[in-house]
Parts: sequence; structure tokens; C-alpha cells
Amino acid sequence: MKKLINDVSDVVKDSLLGVEAAHPDLVRVDHENKVVYRVDAPVADKVGIISGGGSGHEPMHGGFVGVGMLDAACAGEVFTSPVPDQMLAATKLVDGGRGVLHIVKNYTGDVMNFEMAAELAADEGIRVEAVVVDDDVAVQDSLYTAGRRGVGLTVLLEKIVGAAAEQGRDLDYIVALAKRIIANGRSMGMALTGCTVPAAGKPTFELADNEMELGIGIHGEPGRERRAVGTAAEVADMLVRPILHDLDYRGGEVIAFVNGMGGTPLIELYIVFNEVAQILAGEGVRIVRCLVGNYITSLDMAGCSVTLLKCDDEMVSLWDAPVVTPGLRWGK
Amino acid sequence: MKKLINDVSDVVKDSLLGVEAAHPDLVRVDHENKVVYRVDAPVADKVGIISGGGSGHEPMHGGFVGVGMLDAACAGEVFTSPVPDQMLAATKLVDGGRGVLHIVKNYTGDVMNFEMAAELAADEGIRVEAVVVDDDVAVQDSLYTAGRRGVGLTVLLEKIVGAAAEQGRDLDYIVALAKRIIANGRSMGMALTGCTVPAAGKPTFELADNEMELGIGIHGEPGRERRAVGTAAEVADMLVRPILHDLDYRGGEVIAFVNGMGGTPLIELYIVFNEVAQILAGEGVRIVRCLVGNYITSLDMAGCSVTLLKCDDEMVSLWDAPVVTPGLRWGK
Repeated sequence: MKKLINDVSDVVKDSLLGVEAAHPDLVRVDHENKVVYRVDAPVADKVGIISGGGSGHEPMHGGFVGVGMLDAACAGEVFTSPVPDQMLAATKLVDGGRGVLHIVKNYTGDVMNFEMAAELAADEGIRVEAVVVDDDVAVQDSLYTAGRRGVGLTVLLEKIVGAAAEQGRDLDYIVALAKRIIANGRSMGMALTGCTVPAAGKPTFELADNEMELGIGIHGEPGRERRAVGTAAEVADMLVRPILHDLDYRGGEVIAFVNGMGGTPLIELYIVFNEVAQILAGEGVRIVRCLVGNYITSLDMAGCSVTLLKCDDEMVSLWDAPVVTPGLRWGK
Repeated sequence: MKKLINDVSDVVKDSLLGVEAAHPDLVRVDHENKVVYRVDAPVADKVGIISGGGSGHEPMHGGFVGVGMLDAACAGEVFTSPVPDQMLAATKLVDGGRGVLHIVKNYTGDVMNFEMAAELAADEGIRVEAVVVDDDVAVQDSLYTAGRRGVGLTVLLEKIVGAAAEQGRDLDYIVALAKRIIANGRSMGMALTGCTVPAAGKPTFELADNEMELGIGIHGEPGRERRAVGTAAEVADMLVRPILHDLDYRGGEVIAFVNGMGGTPLIELYIVFNEVAQILAGEGVRIVRCLVGNYITSLDMAGCSVTLLKCDDEMVSLWDAPVVTPGLRWGK
């Protein structure tokens, strides 16, 4: 294993020190609880938006803390859920008096720990609502999950509900919006290589020189099948078709997201995007906004995922609203 | 070789189709000449800023075309200079009547071809000035270069002079600014792995499981030495010390840039940034702005580079000015 780290046990800690040193205008870090939070938290009279999960998916979630997106993010160890105490600390840090939304990806540990944190927060008088993202159409149950896994849609959801919170919407409104996004978004991913968790020191799985894994999870969980590597056009087809099969996108408008798993160059992601755009055009699905790049990664895994969010005018307007975070920024 | 591509001969073409499909609000592509240009080019009464070079370094340069940065970028084949006809086409596309700046990285082919393009443009009555970026302190001459190579400083320079052009500065002013940036910026990089050029089908070089290459070029050109992999702290030290040795940064302010080579996860880049920040603090060098991420890459190479630009108030103000491109965006 070759990595730019100091000690395997300090990876998350050292990285959070770097985030804090790089973005003092945007975020602070509670190092004891490994929580990245907005420099101006809590924002009075604003719903607090928090998320969190295992590390190794950067820039998600800590890179999405800032104006117009998350108020705080809890960093677990690599590919490991944060614990309830972290989530409680984050909740308290961002509570501006109008309640807090927990954005939870559907992994058993995350769901359980966020639930416990919400109960602890309620005991302290903070109203918490949670939404669980489960957009991955690849498999029904998986290594760490009952039901579908939460993957790329999380990024789009955090951007859109973050904008709604910034505009002063109340918690009920934001929960309804988040559920509408979850109902209208689907994803599927694939890998050309495994990735190496620092503490493990070896790849999570191995693929042969001509093999890819279709339907991979963001922690290297098994997908639908291993098969020979296809062209970008074939890969795009194998990712988009199951999504279109799962939800009726016909005649609709989408925010299209081609995400890199970490080790795949941007030049390839744009090739995949071009193929995705062509397939959607052929199916009468109109791309109104898009995102191409490494936003929800799996360390050094090579591969990509496609997320399609069937959107309405409100989602698009919130997508366009200003966002100023280390990992996603426009508009101000 | 496993890559998300269709045919090795179509990598650049297909990727440019994706860029155009993803960012119709920002850029257009002249597919015949493989030139990405601003959707509103030429901008009247504005100095045109163009750059270009071999592909495989995305988002540089095509991802930096837009408001407040480049007006156009020429894409060569992977790791291969564009030809003068491409540069001439780009120059003509962006000439708004106040002349055009060519930003050239110091590789023999690029320098020669941009010179030829400038002569051709002069024949057509367009005033062209060129600046050559040569910030890499690792080696004096290299595989494709007489003198020092142009690397990470290019990104900072394109941002800063792009802002100056957007504000209506004239060509003489912009050339002087660019030269001041080149005089005050230095870089050094390292690799944990080689990278695979699609047309070659195998890694440019191989490193053993415990080896890194210090002073690597962005095309995998040999660096100063191969040695055992160090910790992030050691690597940061090995990159920053030669930079500080080459230019007197003491007591100054810098824009610090920790760049990923493409295959290294963001979590590691922030660990490196933290080490760089500590070294600079110890040397009395103040980081006033920074950039952390994959901006000038070498396909799937794992590794990083550090660039330090000793900056003045004007550079910082231009750094902060709005930029709206596919790869770098803030402020509007």
C-alpha cells in the first residue's frame, strides 16, 4: 500500500486538520468529535442541515459544509459510520432554533447511529427529522445495508435542501422536499479496480485486467456481476438502462450527475457523460443541469456512477442558488 | 489497460463532446481544431487569454475556459502538444481587438508551436504576446524540455491573468503581471505510481511497491530520484524545501496549491496540505489563499505537487475575483 499519509490511525484526524487549515473562511473543525461545521454555526433562525458517514468519500460530506449546503458533517473512520455522540455534537453545533435535518445514507450502522443521535437530541429539546437516501438501483440488499444503498443522489440532495434551508424554509418543508428528491432520484455505479482502506493495507477486492464490477457500492460492496470491461458507451448503457427501468423518466427533465470513484481521470468522466447524454436524448429525457467530477468517491477506486434526478422547477432553482463550500461552489 | 473510453484514437474527441454537452452555458467546442472556447467569444474590447497543451491533465486547460479565466484552450492528443493551426484558430476565435496572450508551458513542442501560431496570427493582423511558465524546480532539463518544466503555477497564472483581462486591463499590463507571477512561483511534484497513456496501453513507468519518484514531471518524466515512500510529512518536506531553497519566500505571503496528480484521493491531499501549512508556518511564510485538489493532473497517476506563489495584494485581489469555468468557479 502506497499512500500520502502519516500513520494509518491518523488519516481522518490529519485530513481534518488540513481541511481546517485550507478553509478557515468557511469551516471549523471540532477535532474531539470529528465534526466539520460552518464557521458561522449555528445560523440563527435557519434549519440546520447535517450529514455524515464513513470517511474515504471526499469531498463528501465535510467538503460540502458551508453556505447553501451542509451546516455540519460528521466524519467516521474510513468506510465506518460515525458514532451517535458525533452526530449529537454536530446537531447541537448547528441548531439555530428551527430544528435540524439529518441526511442519512442507507447503511445499517449510519441509520442506527443517526436514530440514536436524534433521540439524544430530542432529550435536549432539539427537534430533529431524518431522511434516508437509498438511490442505488444495483442491488436490493448489500454487505452493509438492508434495502438499497445511498450513493450519488446524496450529493444532489445536500445541495438542494441546503439551498432551501439557506432561504429560510422550515423543517417540514425541507423534509418534504428531501423526500421528493429521494423519490425521484436513482443511481448506479461500476468499478474498474478496488480501493485500499488504509487500516487494511490491501485492496478491498481484486479485478482481473479485463474485468469490471457492475453495480458496485461505494465501499467496494459487491454489485450485480463481474464481466469483461466494455467501452464507455457500453458502460454508460449498463448504468443508465437500469435507472430508466426503475423509474419512469420519459418526457421529464433531469439533473444528471456523472461521478468519479476517485481514481478515474476527468477526461474519462466526460467521455462517459457524453454517452449518458446521448442515451437520454434518445429516450426523450432532457438534461437541464449536470455535475461531472469526483464528488462521492471510494478512495482510489477507478470507476464511475451515474445519478439521474427527475427534477421540477423548484429543484432546479435551488440547484442554481449560491453554494460556497470547499468542494462545491458557485454563485457568491 | 482498463479505461472508460471507446476507442483509443477517440479519447480527446469524445471527451470534448462531453465537455460541450455538460457545459453549454459556458463553452463551445470547435471540434475540427479541438479548441474549447467561451460561449461569448470573442469578447469585445477584452484581451483574449488562451492556453493549451497535451490532453490528460484535465481539468487543465479546457476546464478553465469561461468568465474570468481562459477565453480558449487547445487540446492536443494525450501528452502531445497541439499544432500551430489549433493555436491560430483559438487566437482568431478570441481576438476582441485588444490582442491575445498565449500562456505556454515550457515544453519544447508547445513553445515551438505557439511561436509559429503567433507568427501566423501576426500575419493576420492580431497582436499576440506569449509567456512561458517554467516553475518546476525539480530538474533543469528534462525529457521534453530545455530548462525547467511548466507545471502547477500554470493554474494559478491562468486564474489571475484571466481576472485581469476580465477587468479590462490591456495586453502590456497583463504580460507584465504574468511575468511577475512566473518570477514568483515555484513547484515540485512526486508520484507513487505511473500513469497509462491510452495509445500506449501500459504505464509510462513502473515503481516498486515501496517506491516513489521525487520531482516527477506531469508526463511521467523522470524526476530527481527514486526512493522509499515517506510519510506525508516527509513528502511535504521533500517538496517544499527545494521550493524555499530556490526562491526567498521568507516573511512573504503565498497562494499555496496542493495539487493531485489524478489518482490520489482528496483525503490524502488534505493531509499533505496540513503538512505544507505547518512547514510554512515554521518558516514564517503566511498562506493567504490556497487551492487543494486535482487541477493539473497526469491521467491516473497517484501523487501530488506543491506550488507556492509569492503574492502581492493585486494578485490576491485578482485571485478572489469571480471565475466561472467548468473546473474552477466562484464568485458569480
